[in-house]
Amino acid sequence: MEIPDMQHQVMGYDRSATMFSPDGHILQVEYAEKTVRLGTASIGFSCSDGVVIIADKGVKDKLIVNESADKIYEIDGHIMASAAGILSDARLLVNHIRVNAQQHRVTYDTPVDVESIIREAADIKQQYTQHPGIRPFGVSLMIAGISDGVPRLYTSEITGNYLEYTANVIGKNDDRIKEILIEKYREDVSVDGAIKLGVNIFKDVLGDKFDARRLNVGFIKSKNAKLEKLSKEEIEKLI
Amino acid sequence: MEIPDMQHQVMGYDRSATMFSPDGHILQVEYAEKTVRLGTASIGFSCSDGVVIIADKGVKDKLIVNESADKIYEIDGHIMASAAGILSDARLLVNHIRVNAQQHRVTYDTPVDVESIIREAADIKQQYTQHPGIRPFGVSLMIAGISDGVPRLYTSEITGNYLEYTANVIGKNDDRIKEILIEKYREDVSVDGAIKLGVNIFKDVLGDKFDARRLNVGFIKSKNAKLEKLSKEEIEKLI
Amino acid sequence: MEIPDMQHQVMGYDRSATMFSPDGHILQVEYAEKTVRLGTASIGFSCSDGVVIIADKGVKDKLIVNESADKIYEIDGHIMASAAGILSDARLLVNHIRVNAQQHRVTYDTPVDVESIIREAADIKQQYTQHPGIRPFGVSLMIAGISDGVPRLYTSEITGNYLEYTANVIGKNDDRIKEILIEKYREDVSVDGAIKLGVNIFKDVLGDKFDARRLNVGFIKSKNAKLEKLSKEEIEKLI
Amino acid sequence: MEIPDMQHQVMGYDRSATMFSPDGHILQVEYAEKTVRLGTASIGFSCSDGVVIIADKGVKDKLIVNESADKIYEIDGHIMASAAGILSDARLLVNHIRVNAQQHRVTYDTPVDVESIIREAADIKQQYTQHPGIRPFGVSLMIAGISDGVPRLYTSEITGNYLEYTANVIGKNDDRIKEILIEKYREDVSVDGAIKLGVNIFKDVLGDKFDARRLNVGFIKSKNAKLEKLSKEEIEKLI
Amino acid sequence: MEIPDMQHQVMGYDRSATMFSPDGHILQVEYAEKTVRLGTASIGFSCSDGVVIIADKGVKDKLIVNESADKIYEIDGHIMASAAGILSDARLLVNHIRVNAQQHRVTYDTPVDVESIIREAADIKQQYTQHPGIRPFGVSLMIAGISDGVPRLYTSEITGNYLEYTANVIGKNDDRIKEILIEKYREDVSVDGAIKLGVNIFKDVLGDKFDARRLNVGFIKSKNAKLEKLSKEEIEKLI
Amino acid sequence: MEIPDMQHQVMGYDRSATMFSPDGHILQVEYAEKTVRLGTASIGFSCSDGVVIIADKGVKDKLIVNESADKIYEIDGHIMASAAGILSDARLLVNHIRVNAQQHRVTYDTPVDVESIIREAADIKQQYTQHPGIRPFGVSLMIAGISDGVPRLYTSEITGNYLEYTANVIGKNDDRIKEILIEKYREDVSVDGAIKLGVNIFKDVLGDKFDARRLNVGFIKSKNAKLEKLSKEEIEKLI
Amino acid sequence: MEIPDMQHQVMGYDRSATMFSPDGHILQVEYAEKTVRLGTASIGFSCSDGVVIIADKGVKDKLIVNESADKIYEIDGHIMASAAGILSDARLLVNHIRVNAQQHRVTYDTPVDVESIIREAADIKQQYTQHPGIRPFGVSLMIAGISDGVPRLYTSEITGNYLEYTANVIGKNDDRIKEILIEKYREDVSVDGAIKLGVNIFKDVLGDKFDARRLNVGFIKSKNAKLEKLSKEEIEKLI
Repeated sequence: MEIPDMQHQVMGYDRSATMFSPDGHILQVEYAEKTVRLGTASIGFSCSDGVVIIADKGVKDKLIVNESADKIYEIDGHIMASAAGILSDARLLVNHIRVNAQQHRVTYDTPVDVESIIREAADIKQQYTQHPGIRPFGVSLMIAGISDGVPRLYTSEITGNYLEYTANVIGKNDDRIKEILIEKYREDVSVDGAIKLGVNIFKDVLGDKFDARRLNVGFIKSKNAKLEKLSKEEIEKLI
Repeated sequence: MEIPDMQHQVMGYDRSATMFSPDGHILQVEYAEKTVRLGTASIGFSCSDGVVIIADKGVKDKLIVNESADKIYEIDGHIMASAAGILSDARLLVNHIRVNAQQHRVTYDTPVDVESIIREAADIKQQYTQHPGIRPFGVSLMIAGISDGVPRLYTSEITGNYLEYTANVIGKNDDRIKEILIEKYREDVSVDGAIKLGVNIFKDVLGDKFDARRLNVGFIKSKNAKLEKLSKEEIEKLI
Repeated sequence: MEIPDMQHQVMGYDRSATMFSPDGHILQVEYAEKTVRLGTASIGFSCSDGVVIIADKGVKDKLIVNESADKIYEIDGHIMASAAGILSDARLLVNHIRVNAQQHRVTYDTPVDVESIIREAADIKQQYTQHPGIRPFGVSLMIAGISDGVPRLYTSEITGNYLEYTANVIGKNDDRIKEILIEKYREDVSVDGAIKLGVNIFKDVLGDKFDARRLNVGFIKSKNAKLEKLSKEEIEKLI
Repeated sequence: MEIPDMQHQVMGYDRSATMFSPDGHILQVEYAEKTVRLGTASIGFSCSDGVVIIADKGVKDKLIVNESADKIYEIDGHIMASAAGILSDARLLVNHIRVNAQQHRVTYDTPVDVESIIREAADIKQQYTQHPGIRPFGVSLMIAGISDGVPRLYTSEITGNYLEYTANVIGKNDDRIKEILIEKYREDVSVDGAIKLGVNIFKDVLGDKFDARRLNVGFIKSKNAKLEKLSKEEIEKLI
Repeated sequence: MEIPDMQHQVMGYDRSATMFSPDGHILQVEYAEKTVRLGTASIGFSCSDGVVIIADKGVKDKLIVNESADKIYEIDGHIMASAAGILSDARLLVNHIRVNAQQHRVTYDTPVDVESIIREAADIKQQYTQHPGIRPFGVSLMIAGISDGVPRLYTSEITGNYLEYTANVIGKNDDRIKEILIEKYREDVSVDGAIKLGVNIFKDVLGDKFDARRLNVGFIKSKNAKLEKLSKEEIEKLI
Repeated sequence: MEIPDMQHQVMGYDRSATMFSPDGHILQVEYAEKTVRLGTASIGFSCSDGVVIIADKGVKDKLIVNESADKIYEIDGHIMASAAGILSDARLLVNHIRVNAQQHRVTYDTPVDVESIIREAADIKQQYTQHPGIRPFGVSLMIAGISDGVPRLYTSEITGNYLEYTANVIGKNDDRIKEILIEKYREDVSVDGAIKLGVNIFKDVLGDKFDARRLNVGFIKSKNAKLEKLSKEEIEKLI
Repeated sequence: MEIPDMQHQVMGYDRSATMFSPDGHILQVEYAEKTVRLGTASIGFSCSDGVVIIADKGVKDKLIVNESADKIYEIDGHIMASAAGILSDARLLVNHIRVNAQQHRVTYDTPVDVESIIREAADIKQQYTQHPGIRPFGVSLMIAGISDGVPRLYTSEITGNYLEYTANVIGKNDDRIKEILIEKYREDVSVDGAIKLGVNIFKDVLGDKFDARRLNVGFIKSKNAKLEKLSKEEIEKLI
């Protein structure tokens, strides 16, 4: 890269998502990726018997009704989502894919495939990196669910690219949590095991700031394909 | 953050809500949050028997008809709103959600859910942070009402994010008022108790500038889900 | 405010009504408020028996047909308006609310409410402070009329905010005229008394430049809700 | 005004008609007013028995067919117009109001009112000072005609404001011609007297450059409400 | 003019046709007028018995098929046009007015009036000086034809203004050719005489570069209102 | 030209095809003309018995399927095209005129005229030099075909201007090839002779880099009006 | 080229795909070509008995479900695609051409031609280099398939240009891989031979970083025109 970053900023290559820098980067997209890392983390697992998402709601003001800060969103009975970054951006995408899932159910009378839900969200995200005036969505989405009895976990990037994972993390401290996941995650983990693992990763990473009230735990078992959530008390028992 | 704020201003990252700064912030949104703090405050409470909003109308010119400066807006019989920031921006949102509430009543013959009203307003706010040319709404909304007999209190941010609170404040001196709320608010407070608490917080915070004429007090009791307001005389008795 | 005004100008925060300055102001709106003060003043009164507007047409070229410079506009029989600032901007709003009042009369067969007329104008003004490319209306509107037998006086700001007043002034020397109003206005003033008061305020404020030909006096009595205007001769008798 | 003009230019407040300068001016509109003064003048009179417009076509190239440079345009039999500034801008407005006058005649079977014609043109002009990308019309219009037997003379400004006059001038040397009009015009002047007065004002102001060929004289008498023009020979007899 | 031209360039008043300079000029329009003078000239004549246009095609590459560089365009049998400046811009206008002339013939079964054709083209040109983003047409049009048996010659300017001429020139060396026209043109000239005069003016002005192959000669006689062109041989005989 | 080129660049007159420079040039159009010269050349001939185009495909990577780099495009059986510059821009125009030719055939049941095809392409090119945001087509088109038994050869410029030629060249080394054409081309050349001439011009100009594989030879004879192409072997025999 | 690259950057010629630099380049397109080279490579082969694509998925995070990172996309049974660059941009194009292929099948009941698929994608890419505000697609596409029993391999460039190849590479290290292909590829290679060749080229080029898990191998045999993929185990046997 012959021109240092500061130069690219002075020269304005980073003012719009519809401009390539001389070395082929889209800098607004890279900045939006930093926005994602400013948001609290969510960890997802694909397990032998279902999927799990554990989301950190952060240290909230005590006057907030804790449930209203939940970061696990039901898309359809068999699919849940979480997000890191600008949560109002996430809500817009979540609204969109919820409608999508319902339309599928009404039209075909079957639950929608998990991948087609992440693709729908990702297609919208791609559009917002290529068209004039609008800004990219400042949010990473994690989608987990059951397709034909099989657990599936996806996360989407700012660009609109998405991948399937066995386990993954989005948001603050993603690098550090990723290392722990790579070390400790086993593909034969059960939903219960994954919940324990995830909660303990947050305990480890958040240190003094850890509090069961911060966490949001959702899981969908393959056998019934139905989103369930843990209460604060259930979470505390896991620590 | 490697580049100081002043630099971001010189380089223009703060000129549009559709641009991320190199460290992942949307600066126009942060500036609009300052606009909210330039407006007089509103305090809201969720109580054991209903919801309360107490709004400061500020020191107005004596020739103003006092009621016309009211900052508590009826959305539907069972829902009220207040705002801090640019009040004409607020009026546009209030008009929109009023129509929304009426459409719900006409279509389903039931009162609309409080959360769906704040979400409607918040969705519009999100759009105004992502599309070209327009500016974010320079206003924070507080919505309080009764859903299925249960008191609910919400506030929305500039980004279009919103949360439910047991008690909250928007506008001028929000930090100081928040501290008092955290210290003094109890979840089992009654509507009457919350009104006394709120009026006295304003008395405390406004000091010499306090005047019962400045305040606007609205409450909705769970039992009848009907917006009522206190007269100046009723407010004065509380001090 | 950490950055002085001159800085905000150099950095361009004041070039569009869709941009917040770092301290949360919309500077184009504040500049448009200066435009309003460049226009000659109008004084309005809500009286015990009706409403009054006295407008200063300024020192006009002698070849102008005096009536054509009138600044009191009939909106409907029971509502009048005046304006300060860019009068062609005012005409566009006046045209709009006239149509509005007529549509109400045709649809419901009753005179439109005064507040719904000022709100209609104010809603348009708000839109012109939030959408791309257009500029805010450079005009303040004063609307006075009779709603269900009750006198009502409103004025709108550039932002699209509006308030009801017992008496108010818009345009040149508004600060000085306001002080006199606060000192001399009594809520039980009659239409005749208010006209005398208003004409004498202009005599006082305009000094040597005062001339009955400059003034435009309109009033609507509650009993008949019908706009009437004074002739030059009638005005001269009041001095 | 704390910032000198040159500063406003350097800072770009004068680049668009949709921007207010810090002291509340719209500079593009003021520049367009200079354009009007670059065009040759037209003088209009309201007389006891009709209306008169005398327009200076300027010193034209001898190969021009003199009539084709005429600056008095028939709008309808009983209404004429003249313009100063960019004549192609004027033509667009003239085309528009001609159609307007014809539509009125076809719809209501009566001649259109003179004021509604100037208002139509002025409304368009106002729009071009408030919407994005377009520039204001660089032209001042003078409209004269007979409404219900009464002579009427109007001129419109760049802003879209318009006024009725007993006599007026637009274009080059307007200040000097205005002074003469104020001194010499009497409201009881006849059409014939006004023509003599106007032609002699041009003789006086143009000095050596005066030539009957430069002038365009149109008048409409109240009794027949029919546009008539003087020939060069008839004009020469008046000098 | 208090600010020199170079200043206006530095300050950007000359970047768009929708901006007035501080002294009331539209500089993009003035630049486009220079474009017209970069194109080879066309001379037109209104004669006692018809109209004539003689156009200089310039020194073309020998491989060009000479007729394809013709600069006299048939609009309808009784109307021809020529252009100076950007010839592809001219073609767009010519296409438009051709369709216009045909529509008139089909609708009314009479040949269209010459002036309504130049006005149509001029109206389009005016629009391109007032609306956003587009540039003015870089071309001057000359239109000649027979209306009701009478010869008519018009030329349009960049602004969209147009005038009728007895004789005129557009394009390169227009000042010098104009002087010769003023000196030598007589209104009673015949078509044959005008052709001789025009060809010899080009001979005089082009000097060594003169070549009969460069010229394009078209004429329409009043008696048959039918466009005819001279061959190279016929032109050579005139020299 | 009083301002040197470098100045025009610094001042930004060359940033958009909708801006004239102070000396009347459209610089973006002139830059696009350089793009044309960066592309390999095509030579066209109008012959006594048909038309010929010989196009240089350049030194291509050996893995390219040679035919896929062909630069002679069939528009309709009796019309072919070639291009120099941005070939994807050319494809868009070629697609457009192919559809045009087919529509003509379907509608009128006759082959379309060659000139109406080049005009169609040229009209699109003109539009892209005058409207906002888009860039000019970076390509020169050569169109050759048979109209009513007569061979026709046209080339279009960036501006959208086009001319008919007896022989012409577009693209790299056009100046040098033009000189050779002027020297060696005779109007009575046969298709066979023109092919030989063209191939040998490329041999001469390309020198060491000449290779029969680089060339694309297409011809249409007047007698059958049917596009034919030479094989590599047939080309090699001509050298 | 008289102005060095750095200059072009300072002067802003590289900020939009709708601007030519003074030497005729579209710099945004050239920057997007760098984006393509930042993506991992895909190698394609046209073989005696079918087509082959071998794509490098890169060193992925171990938690990614390997198949989800596949870079060989089925367009229709007989056509596959791969991409290098921004994969979400590729997905949008792939979605588009998939629909295209299905529409063809439904409409004509035959498999679509491979070239018409690459042309469809390339046409979209061209549009994104010429219209305002949008950015070029940051991706190179490789399309391989069977048309009427014949193997076909195409790749498209950023500009929207495309060519047919016997063998080709897109993405990282394309120069080095191209050299190996030119040296080792023979046109009579079988699908099996090409797979071996391609896998070994990646082994060679990736060196220590090579891993069978990184590779994605797809092929379509002419005889059945049906996309098949190799498993990791099958790939490992080839090394």
